[in-house]
Parts: sequence; structure tokens; C-alpha cells
Amino acid sequence: MTSTGANPIDFRSDTVTRPDEAMREAMAAAEVGDNVIDVDPTIKALEERAAAVLGMPAALWTPSGTMANLIALSVHLQRGDRFLAPKGAHVLTNELGSAAWLAGGMPEALEHDAGPGRPTPESLAAAIGPRIDTYFSLRTTLLCLENTHNAAGGAIIPPHEHAQLLATARQAGLRVHLDGARIWHAAAALGLPPAALTVGVDTVSACFSKGLGAPVGSVVAGSVTFVERARRMRQMLGGGVRQGGVLAAACLVALDRIGDLEEDHEKARRLAAGLADIGWDVNTPETNIVLVRVADLEVTLKSLWAQGVLALPLGGRVRFIAHRDLTMADIEDALRRIKAGGHP
Amino acid sequence: MTSTGANPIDFRSDTVTRPDEAMREAMAAAEVGDNVIDVDPTIKALEERAAAVLGMPAALWTPSGTMANLIALSVHLQRGDRFLAPKGAHVLTNELGSAAWLAGGMPEALEHDAGPGRPTPESLAAAIGPRIDTYFSLRTTLLCLENTHNAAGGAIIPPHEHAQLLATARQAGLRVHLDGARIWHAAAALGLPPAALTVGVDTVSACFSKGLGAPVGSVVAGSVTFVERARRMRQMLGGGVRQGGVLAAACLVALDRIGDLEEDHEKARRLAAGLADIGWDVNTPETNIVLVRVADLEVTLKSLWAQGVLALPLGGRVRFIAHRDLTMADIEDALRRIKAGGHP
Amino acid sequence: MTSTGANPIDFRSDTVTRPDEAMREAMAAAEVGDNVIDVDPTIKALEERAAAVLGMPAALWTPSGTMANLIALSVHLQRGDRFLAPKGAHVLTNELGSAAWLAGGMPEALEHDAGPGRPTPESLAAAIGPRIDTYFSLRTTLLCLENTHNAAGGAIIPPHEHAQLLATARQAGLRVHLDGARIWHAAAALGLPPAALTVGVDTVSACFSKGLGAPVGSVVAGSVTFVERARRMRQMLGGGVRQGGVLAAACLVALDRIGDLEEDHEKARRLAAGLADIGWDVNTPETNIVLVRVADLEVTLKSLWAQGVLALPLGGRVRFIAHRDLTMADIEDALRRIKAGGHP
Amino acid sequence: MTSTGANPIDFRSDTVTRPDEAMREAMAAAEVGDNVIDVDPTIKALEERAAAVLGMPAALWTPSGTMANLIALSVHLQRGDRFLAPKGAHVLTNELGSAAWLAGGMPEALEHDAGPGRPTPESLAAAIGPRIDTYFSLRTTLLCLENTHNAAGGAIIPPHEHAQLLATARQAGLRVHLDGARIWHAAAALGLPPAALTVGVDTVSACFSKGLGAPVGSVVAGSVTFVERARRMRQMLGGGVRQGGVLAAACLVALDRIGDLEEDHEKARRLAAGLADIGWDVNTPETNIVLVRVADLEVTLKSLWAQGVLALPLGGRVRFIAHRDLTMADIEDALRRIKAGGHP
Repeated sequence: MTSTGANPIDFRSDTVTRPDEAMREAMAAAEVGDNVIDVDPTIKALEERAAAVLGMPAALWTPSGTMANLIALSVHLQRGDRFLAPKGAHVLTNELGSAAWLAGGMPEALEHDAGPGRPTPESLAAAIGPRIDTYFSLRTTLLCLENTHNAAGGAIIPPHEHAQLLATARQAGLRVHLDGARIWHAAAALGLPPAALTVGVDTVSACFSKGLGAPVGSVVAGSVTFVERARRMRQMLGGGVRQGGVLAAACLVALDRIGDLEEDHEKARRLAAGLADIGWDVNTPETNIVLVRVADLEVTLKSLWAQGVLALPLGGRVRFIAHRDLTMADIEDALRRIKAGGHP
Repeated sequence: MTSTGANPIDFRSDTVTRPDEAMREAMAAAEVGDNVIDVDPTIKALEERAAAVLGMPAALWTPSGTMANLIALSVHLQRGDRFLAPKGAHVLTNELGSAAWLAGGMPEALEHDAGPGRPTPESLAAAIGPRIDTYFSLRTTLLCLENTHNAAGGAIIPPHEHAQLLATARQAGLRVHLDGARIWHAAAALGLPPAALTVGVDTVSACFSKGLGAPVGSVVAGSVTFVERARRMRQMLGGGVRQGGVLAAACLVALDRIGDLEEDHEKARRLAAGLADIGWDVNTPETNIVLVRVADLEVTLKSLWAQGVLALPLGGRVRFIAHRDLTMADIEDALRRIKAGGHP
Repeated sequence: MTSTGANPIDFRSDTVTRPDEAMREAMAAAEVGDNVIDVDPTIKALEERAAAVLGMPAALWTPSGTMANLIALSVHLQRGDRFLAPKGAHVLTNELGSAAWLAGGMPEALEHDAGPGRPTPESLAAAIGPRIDTYFSLRTTLLCLENTHNAAGGAIIPPHEHAQLLATARQAGLRVHLDGARIWHAAAALGLPPAALTVGVDTVSACFSKGLGAPVGSVVAGSVTFVERARRMRQMLGGGVRQGGVLAAACLVALDRIGDLEEDHEKARRLAAGLADIGWDVNTPETNIVLVRVADLEVTLKSLWAQGVLALPLGGRVRFIAHRDLTMADIEDALRRIKAGGHP
Repeated sequence: MTSTGANPIDFRSDTVTRPDEAMREAMAAAEVGDNVIDVDPTIKALEERAAAVLGMPAALWTPSGTMANLIALSVHLQRGDRFLAPKGAHVLTNELGSAAWLAGGMPEALEHDAGPGRPTPESLAAAIGPRIDTYFSLRTTLLCLENTHNAAGGAIIPPHEHAQLLATARQAGLRVHLDGARIWHAAAALGLPPAALTVGVDTVSACFSKGLGAPVGSVVAGSVTFVERARRMRQMLGGGVRQGGVLAAACLVALDRIGDLEEDHEKARRLAAGLADIGWDVNTPETNIVLVRVADLEVTLKSLWAQGVLALPLGGRVRFIAHRDLTMADIEDALRRIKAGGHP
């Protein structure tokens, strides 16, 4: 698809945000080292700070959130293991199946029966099923949560539900990985520190390039032993880099900006309200993602792009993501263009 | 679990059937050869006959149905491919995840919204979703059906539903593999030749050790080109054997016995009726599998085994399978024992 | 290639041997059970006896030697592990790379600097190299020996060399797997029990279809814990079978025949001597394999086959294997045909 | 190991080079975009320029040379394929076995019988062997060269030998991948453009973080179709990044500096000459790598580090790498320290 409108307003993702001057300056000034055969001091500083912010003992930088999840699942899963994740989870639908073919797990999707992106403890327990100890059976060993849940519209798992799911998983002997690519958004929306949303998990991934403006970089955090194994897996996948401190410096700046995310949520709410006003079938955004159900996805997307309003399809709906490179004026401008276009 | 009762009545599976005298004689008399570096004539005869019975151009013997499915999926799937199968399908739940970690596919389970074991064409179409051509997206490339569907209680996909599912899959460019481990049962129950149930599929697997009494052996059938690739994959997995004709001879005898299976279905219906009479929550068996929902699975199973009625758990229910090594008198005996036990 | 000669004399492999009457009777009379969900008593008896003969705590039946090796390597190896094996080892060249892509090991070949099929402890130590503990380095964790070594012409590793290699591997913390597909031949030639050739190994595989006449079947033996893990891996690969006792019965008969193998070695020596007499460049067979270096492999093979002398290429040479289905008269007949043909 | 000396002189690798001011300015000024869902203009510019410099139709940026090689091998290899590479090649020994377990190839190492890092066409042809078309045989499908060859001491494959190896591989139907992590060095030493060293290959990888000072980044180049498949594989591995232009900007600067590398070669020659003068057993460096054979590797390395001369072990030798962050004065200083230390 191409945009023919002047000044396109880009809702495709919060990954389109560009590093600003302050971030670029931090990158240019970063102290660096060879992080494969030695230690890059800025990566080290980021890993330590990210671990603290996420409430985990240790963390490892990765070039992408996809690699962060892949590493975690590869360390947790053995061939013959089954893992559970809510329907539409990033590890199920957006990582080209690497959780299956590379990490080695057989997935089973959980219903969103507690609300968007959220399985109930009961459905989790049912999916786990009775403990089976025959040698010829799949063993359910891992629960993979996603907070916020992208495909469910940036949906939040609140702490009390998180605790119940964790308890259910733990009682059945499961490990828990949290895909926290946008955990910053959940934390900002709830007014909680991110560490409040990782209680009890074995591992958590988080991205600095989603909504926070860092150009490249994620982390996967867990125990010290986990991070040792993860470092080896990162090297296997080709994710070990040399003077990555130039990127980590931007990630450190990004961590200072978590508090800003509530502004993006306000933009999303304004967009959703405006779309609802003109009769669109829209979700109530919990964070920065707006999903719209339309009659003909392709027609709507083409029309939006023709007016310079860039959005993407997701699970049969139109997804708009609000982010720091859009102003509230951009939101109003987008609403004006959409109204003028006569959708849906 | 152990059975303390004398003369246990074995409903654990139709795989417990033992070769009878006629079958053993055929095995003892089989003409054989080295089927790795050359051709075993009896395996060749079986493969040709099985291909014909299944309505496919060619077939390949395998030591198990699990390997037959694994080979088919390995040939069909590439990393980054998604495949669809009805919930509880053998390839999803009973093959130790090899469809994922070895064949390389990311699975998605289909609802049984047309009846036990049977997705509707609409839910299939929804799961396939719109054709996506971005390089970073999973590609849905394979539908895997199961007829009869074990975990759904030996449920049959009738030909007209099969045709609709095939049409939906084909229009979306999907390949179709049919797990026909018990296709013989579906064919017998419908009074149709097995080939009537494979129309339009790319590949089909079938077992001779399920209900037909052969000790070891399955086939996977498809095009000549598929079988060439399958033969290589079988060798990779260690499934190439030498004078396998001793086993294929039994499989050939088994093929003569497809017509007998309706007797097993009659036994299953009698068992289900008897269990319903005493108040058990039982399915209406379409073929040879009886599923019972009980309050406490473990308690019920232990009690059954204590009386010499051997059954297994399946998806939270008790599964009884009727087969050729049980007589109608055994069924009545089992019902007497269960009544005496006072279940559930 | 096809044989146009009458009464072909088949030296292609000792896997072409067919079960004789006694073996077929044992198969027909075998007591059997479902060896996936329960225990087949004849498989159990074979596994126990094979474990004892091989001097190991436990053993597991497999449908092929390829699967036996694949299971052992899959249990031993992790991704990022390197394993060592003598050049031309079956696991390196004859198993379609499954040691690499499925078991997950990076192989390194050892020179035959102590003699055919036999690395010296020094070259083993050099290949292991210094212990490296960086997270980004391959870890050498497994030595895979082969006794007798097929591609080296049925070459034997004698016990004192075996002991030295084991000591070297053990001191470096390596595990040791022995591919003993033809361990029977080494034992017979040395006049030792097979268990004398497995001292100190973690696992050993052995075949009943190579030289002993059993139609199908191998074992992989090791600790009880290893066999538990191996059983699960066998099921993953589709090597779990139901009433496999019909095959195990033949394997039990085969075990009674180990003592006969020295006759096959005598046949090989006679063949080699006869070929040397007419000027062929032939190895000194240590067991039942004769290798001949020829000017033009393809031309020689075609000519041999045209006269009804069936042999195969192996590593650029012509391989003849002597076995129980060939008599000494067949050897003389083959030599006459070859002389008449005017090779090489 | 730790360095206690003041002002350590770092010969560990040419990957320790840090971006200088000009490079950091280019990074800070880079025009960027989301390179997963769209195109980052600076990555695009780098890919186009790198393709041209390497003489290939197209190129793809990757976060590391390890990933560049892994992607190429994953696209080229199928399970059941064998690939050939010179002994000690990076893909064999320095990539944690991913060529085997992930790309799926069974490797075989080639002798350096034409000189360091260089197999002869004859040994290549012998390793390829006769074309075998049985379904149960490994298929040799790929030759992987390395120019310069790191473990062989930065050894160069000159164009006429390259051409002969290519011809041999092509005649046997093999594809050819060139690991050109340091192809820049070979080109500089020969006074040729890099494209003169890629003639006839299917794919080539090259690194900007080795000797050229870029902090992060490599490319893998090949046909347009190859790059399409490579892009998908990169995403699977988690190597797709967002605003990677900040890194690509440094890589573009690095490309301007290929001509400087001859200075590093001069430094290596001076170091080698100085070491030879004091009686060390040193290679004749063809590019920027100096290898020294010592009596006790560990003792020597510890002593060097104690004096602030940082080197690493490689294949049982001490490896020194000269690079742009070392001056000729540093070389002399290192030689003085080593002489004072009294090695070996």
C-alpha cells in the first residue's frame, strides 16, 4: 500500500518513532567496548538498569523483541514440551513460528475469557490438564503471557489477575515467561512501576523501540543462570554484537521516558472517541492501541492510506497505534481526514 | 495403574489387538528382501494395495502412524508455515510436538463447531484469514484433518463435509493431509470404500495396528513425488527397515478385515447404551470409541481397573475402545462389573 | 544397476540376509503385547538379554541402527556441542546428517592414524583441544566410536586401544557412544564377549539385521536413566511400535548366532585372498568386509553386476560383504566369475 | 584473564575498534525509518552500496557476521545436505554449530593442502566424490569458502585459486557461499576491488565491524531472490531491527576506509618480524593476523596479559590482530614489552 496524501499521519506502529536529538546525542557520546569477547560498558549499564526496573536479577540486551522472546523460549522449552499462550499472542502469530520450530515447543492457545488478552485461571487450569507422567505424552511446562497484549488491542493484565494466573501456573509446575514488549504501557496506564507487573515470572522481555523512541533494542531478563544460558543462545542466533553501546545509550534514554506514555494513551482515547462519534465499531483503548472492526478491511485500509492516514490490518481489524511522534493535533487532523473520507 | 481383577477386559486401545494364527502364518511365509538398499516384495505389495485402497497414486510403509504423520508434515511444511488441525488432533496432542519442533510448523487449533471432531468451513476460512504476503508473516499452508477423530470419540467427517472443507482449503491454496489412522472405521461405519474419504487430499496416513490386528505398521500415501521425498525422510528418522515384509504380510491380512470393523462399532454402541442405562454421561459412539464424562477421573479409573475393566483417560474423560479381541460377551461382562462397582 | 547374470551372488551387504525357518518359527510363536502403552514381553526379554550381552544396565529396541544412533546422539548432545567421530563413521556419512540437524551436534572427523577406523589417543586429544569455557565457544562433549568400522573395511578397535581412547575422552569430560552395529563381528573375531568391547562407554548401539539374519531390529543400551529418555525420543521419532515382539523374537534367535560370525570372516578372507591372487588391490579383512581399490569404480561395478556378482561402492572403493546367506562355494563361484571377467 | 599492565595494547581482535568522531557524527545524522514494516533509507543505501562493492545483485544488512553466514547457510541447505568448508572455518568452529543444528547441514572439513586456509581443487573434488543419487545418501550441495581465513592466520585465497575451486564446485553442481568477514583485507592486500574476489559465488557475507571501525553490522549478499528469502530468515532469527540506519551510517563510513587496511597489514608484518627476531615461531602474515606457536599456550598468554599485551588463543596458537586503533608505535611498544618479558 502507498500513501498518496501529503503529510501522512503514521499510525502503523509505535516502532516507527525516530530517535530525537537528545537520544542521538546520547548515542554519539556512548562509551563502548566489544560486547562479544568482552563487555560494552553502556550495554552493561543498560542491562543492570533494565533488570532493576523490571524487578529481575539480571538482563540481556538483544537486537529485537522477537529475539528476546525466542531466546527465553529456547532456554525454557525442551522438545516434547507444550506451552500455553493467550490467543493471538506475539509468540504464536508474529514470530514466524520460531517458538515451535526453533525453540521446540508445541503451543496451545488460551481463550480470552477474562477479557481482551486475558485468560481466566480456570481456563488456564483446564488447558494445563491433569499432570501426566507417561513417557509418550507432551508435558506442559511453560505459560507465556503478554502484557500489554498487542492483538487484543493493547490490553492490560492487571496485577490481581496476573497473580492468579501465576499461582495457577506455579501450582502445576509451569515456568512463566512474560512478553513485556509493551510492559511500559501497562505500567504507565496503571500508575505502577513495571516491576509490579513481573511478580513471580521466570523471565520477561521488554522493548525500547516500541513507543519509547529507541531505534534498536530489547532485553530479556531473568535469573543470573538464565542470562548465562541466554547469552549463549543469543550468540548462536547471531545476536551478539560488538560496540552495541551506541544502541544501548538510546535505550537508557528511552527508560527515562516511560512516564510520558500516558500521553500516548490519551491520544489513543481521543482517536477512539472520535472514531466512535462517526459510527465506527471501535475498542475502548486501555493503552495506545485502537482496533476498528470494518465491513471490508482492504477497502477501508486503501481509503485511509489514500488520505494519508497510515494504519495496518491486525487479526481482521484495522489497528491504529498512538505514539510519541504524533501530536494531539495529528490525531484531530486524522479524524478530520477520516470524516471527510466517509468511512466506513 | 494395575489391574487386580482376574481376566481383565482390555478397552485401553484397539492397538492391543494381537495377530491371530492366520496373520502369524502369513508373516512366517512372507517373501522378503532388503527394503533399504533394494525392495522388499511384500512391502511393495502392501504399498501398492494400500495406495489403491486409499485412492492415492503411491504409498510408503512406516513403522508407526506417528511416523507416517511426521513424514507427511515434514514434507509439506517449511519453517515459517502455519498449519491448522481440529482441536485435540493426534498431531497436536499425541505426537510429542514433533509437528512443531521437527516438521517445523506452527499449529493453530480449529473448533469442533460442526460437531465432534469437525470444524465448519466457515471457522476454517476464518482461521486461514486473508492471504498475507509480507515477508514477516506466518503463511498458512496446510490443513490437517483426522477421520475418525480419536479425541472426539471416534467421530466421523462425512463425505459432504469433507468436500466442503477441502474446497475451502484448496481455494486458499492450502495443502491437505488426512490423518486416517482409523479411516477404516469411518469407511466401515459409512459403508463406503476408504478412497471415498480421501477425495482431494494431498496425503493420507493409515494404520494397520489399530483395530485390524496387525502387530506393527502404517502407511503414508500421496503422489509419486511425495513418496520419493517421504522415503528419504523415513530414512532420516530411522524408519527404514530391512526385511519388513514379515510385518507387511500382516498388514495385507489386516486389509482383508476392514469389513469386520462394523462388529466393533456394534460392541461400542452396546457398551455406550449399557453405560447410559446406569446413568453414565456417555457419547453416542459413531465408531468404536466410547467417551464418558465423570466427576473424578482418577477415582473412576482406579475403580474400573480394580475390577479388571481397563480404560484410559483422554482429554479429561474415560475412553473405552472396542476391538476385535473383545467379544460381545466381554462387553456384557464389563457392564456387569461396572454396575457391581457402583460408578460413577 | 541391475544384474543380468543368473543366480546372482549378493555381496551388497550383510543386511540382505533373510530369516530362516527357525527364526520365522520363533517369530510366529512370539508372545506379544502393546509396547507403546504397555510392555511387549518379547521385546522386554530381548532388551534385557541384549543389555546383559552388551554389558550395559538397560537397553531399548529400535526399528533400525540409524534410529538407535540418532536416539543416543539426541540424548547426549545439546545445541552448541561438538562431537568427534572417526572419518567415514556411519553417523557422519550414512545417516543423512541427522546427527547434525536433528541431534544438534557439530561434528569433527578424526584421522585413522592408528590404523583403519582407529584414531590415536593423541589425535583424539588434539581434536578435543584445551578446555574452553567462553560462552561463545563450541563445547566438545561426545566421542562417537564405531566398532567394527564399516567404511574402514570392517576394522576392529582392539580392547587396549579402546581403553586408551576412553581414558582420553573421559579425562576431558566427554561422553562416549559406541556405534556397535557390527560389534558382534569384532567380538567374534577377537574371541571376546561383546561386553569386553563396551567397557566405559555411556551408550552403545547394536544391530540384529547385520550378519545375524534378523529381518528388523536394533538396540541402544545405556543407563536406566538414559533408556528412559531414549524411550521418549524413540516415540517422538515414530519408532514406538505395538506388538514388536514378532520382530524381537527373531532378534533373540540372532543373539544365539553370534558365534557363527567367524565363518563369515573366513569367507571374507578367502574372497580377499582370491582377489589378491588375480592382482586386485584389496584390504586385509579383519571381519566380513572386503574393500577393493579400482581404476574406474563405475566400470568395475557394472561389469561385476553383469556377471551376477553384486557389490556396492563405498568411499570410492568396491565393497563386498560376506554373510550367512553365502556359502564358501558361493565365494569360489564369485571368484571364478570375476576371473572370467578379466578385472580390473 | 585480566591485564594488570597500564595502557594495555589490545591485539585480541580487530572487532575491538571503536567508532571515531566522524563515524559517530554520521550515526547521529543518519536518516532513519522502520526497517521491519517499511524501509530504513540508510540501511537501504548501505545494502545497495555493499552489493555494488561486493559485485552482487543485492544485499541484506544483519547485526553480525555470524547471522549473515547462518542466514546464507539456512537458505542454501536442506536436511540431508552435506557442505564442505576448509578446516577451522568460522562456520565450522566459531558459530556454535548453528550451521549444523539450525541451517541443517552435515559439514565435512577440507584440508589446507594448497596453503594456509586453501584446499586444492583436487582435494575439493575428492571430498565431493562421485555423484550419488540414492535416496538414502547425503547430497553434497554447498562449498563454503572463507577469504581471508581467520584460523589460518588471515590467509588469502588468490583469484586464480578461487576460480579453480569455483569451477570444481560448479561442475559438481554445488552452490558456493563465501564467508568474507575480512574480504576487505584480502582485497586491500591484493590491490583488487572486493568484487574481484567474489566471482561466481552465490552468496557472500562481509563485516563492517572487523578492522573498519563500525560498531555493529554485516551484510549477506546474493541474488534478488536470495535476499528475499534471507530477509524472512533474518526476521525469524530476530535480526530484523527498526531504525537500524544509525548503525548502517557507520557501515557506510567503514566502506570508505577499505583502502586504509594495508596500513594494518604493515603493522602485522612489523609485529611478526619483531617476534621472529626474538626467536618466536611466527607465521608470515598475509594480512592483519599474526599467529605464534608456543610451548605452553596458557603460560604465554598469562605472561603477555600481565605486561599489558592482550592476545587470544586460536587453534592452539597465540593470535595477534593488528587494527586501526593501534599505531605503529603501539606495535613497537608491544615488542619491547614482550622482549622484556623473556618469552617464550
